[in-house]
Amino acid sequence: MNKTPINVFCPATIANLSCGFDVLGLALESTGDLMKMRLTEKPGVRITRITGGDLPLEPEKNVAGVAAMALLEASDFNGGLEMEIEKRILPGSGIGSSAASAAGAVWGLNRLLGDPFSLTELVQFAIEGEALASGVPHADNVAPALYGGITLIRGHDPLDIARVHCPPLLYAVVLHPQIELKTADSRSILKRSITLEQGIRQWGNVGGLITGLFTEDYGLISRSLKDGVIEPIRSLLIPGFDQMRQVAMDAGALGFGISGSGPSVFALTKGERLARDTETALNKYYKSVGIPYITFTSAINQDGVRLFPQ
Amino acid sequence: MNKTPINVFCPATIANLSCGFDVLGLALESTGDLMKMRLTEKPGVRITRITGGDLPLEPEKNVAGVAAMALLEASDFNGGLEMEIEKRILPGSGIGSSAASAAGAVWGLNRLLGDPFSLTELVQFAIEGEALASGVPHADNVAPALYGGITLIRGHDPLDIARVHCPPLLYAVVLHPQIELKTADSRSILKRSITLEQGIRQWGNVGGLITGLFTEDYGLISRSLKDGVIEPIRSLLIPGFDQMRQVAMDAGALGFGISGSGPSVFALTKGERLARDTETALNKYYKSVGIPYITFTSAINQDGVRLFPQ
Repeated sequence: MNKTPINVFCPATIANLSCGFDVLGLALESTGDLMKMRLTEKPGVRITRITGGDLPLEPEKNVAGVAAMALLEASDFNGGLEMEIEKRILPGSGIGSSAASAAGAVWGLNRLLGDPFSLTELVQFAIEGEALASGVPHADNVAPALYGGITLIRGHDPLDIARVHCPPLLYAVVLHPQIELKTADSRSILKRSITLEQGIRQWGNVGGLITGLFTEDYGLISRSLKDGVIEPIRSLLIPGFDQMRQVAMDAGALGFGISGSGPSVFALTKGERLARDTETALNKYYKSVGIPYITFTSAINQDGVRLFPQ
Repeated sequence: MNKTPINVFCPATIANLSCGFDVLGLALESTGDLMKMRLTEKPGVRITRITGGDLPLEPEKNVAGVAAMALLEASDFNGGLEMEIEKRILPGSGIGSSAASAAGAVWGLNRLLGDPFSLTELVQFAIEGEALASGVPHADNVAPALYGGITLIRGHDPLDIARVHCPPLLYAVVLHPQIELKTADSRSILKRSITLEQGIRQWGNVGGLITGLFTEDYGLISRSLKDGVIEPIRSLLIPGFDQMRQVAMDAGALGFGISGSGPSVFALTKGERLARDTETALNKYYKSVGIPYITFTSAINQDGVRLFPQ
């Protein structure tokens, strides 16, 4: 048994990407949790330290712990795992904080065990952790965190994940208004039915976004980054949403929307320069709203969870 | 003014492609209408002859006539158009019979006038003809007939059409049960709302189908060729639908569904050999149903309407 510890970087992620509710997600390069992990002879999972977030150390109450336990259970390894988590993604921010830790835990443990499991299997273990956080097992943050780039979850039963081409010039800007918005609440306000017309527009946009990504047609990407189903409802919970969209689009963003179930919002841009401009413009506007917030600009993470430093 | 007549081939098309209701379509190589067209000094549109279908010669009652009139109206040409139509696509078959004539009329007229209009503009003119046939202006057959290959209609207002990559090994099999099924009736039985879960599955499949087409991942294409929204309702109008699906899938098809609003059904396959096998198996089964029908196998038309012979 190799007891050498490893450090892993677990990227933040943006789920949904406007039209792709519950199916699309994207991994971010500039923000992520760090985890230190090592195998132990003693069975079971122990979380020895968490910094940057007030989260439970008991593994069965922690998404990373639950995810790691699910993998250990399925493996033929008789020992255990010890991990430290440095939360750099604020819990509750809507950019996949719990998914990052769950993804990092299973990816790191799998690496320590000699990679016995496939990426899709890792997603399965990680969403057992995610279910603890959101009440429902969702892969829309975990999949991009593990695969990197832009992922499509075609279906959940069985889990069917595909990588979508990610144009190299794509950048993301995130603004996190620091208000509390629980994923479970954010789901409960959704309507359970939509009109057929809303559906047609939504799958037309999903088709357009994916076609635009594969063909690197930024105009088509921009026209497709629309959500007529979820956003009109959820955006009501985010102060200044409509104004932020206007500000971001005026600054040259390709699109603007809610990151996952919020409260973070995101813009996508063609190139870093426009991303910085968009971030500056959003900052200028959001200062006037009077809610504490943070912003950042990020390239797209292409590899998912990885060793750190590489 | 050039009075030399041209002959054009106007391909049959399969709209919807299972999950892509109202947004996806595909052009067929082996079946299409033929049209002979020439400019005249006399203004207006004249249809001098129609063979293969009992369709009105009056241009204002004929989809090709209405489409050609719409283009003439928008052009600065003071003369007129004469055309003969050889219908090889049976009207009411569900493989874009009216769209083929409308697309052929506008493409041929545009060519005769020196190509003043773009493909998207041609689609706009052609759907004015289509509206006459189906009661609602839809581009889902006209777009692939004009663009060729596989097309996505991201949105209708404004019309936003994109080409989706078409893997070279893709083949289609069509079975046309010769029963009458009007597009308008076929739309009226649809439910006007769907559950959010149905929507998510549908746009997951649209995303999967388009990703599979771009990456030439036939497994993903196959898993994505599903329709949980329209097919469960419309398929009730097509005798033997469920059995045909079973027969096609057993013969190795990637997927099976309703072509447009029916009554034709289609299968997609990887390669011509499996297409022929699927056609044979469908034939064998459908003989027992006791309804007159025809079948054919086709490669995908990559260029849309074209001069004939080339």
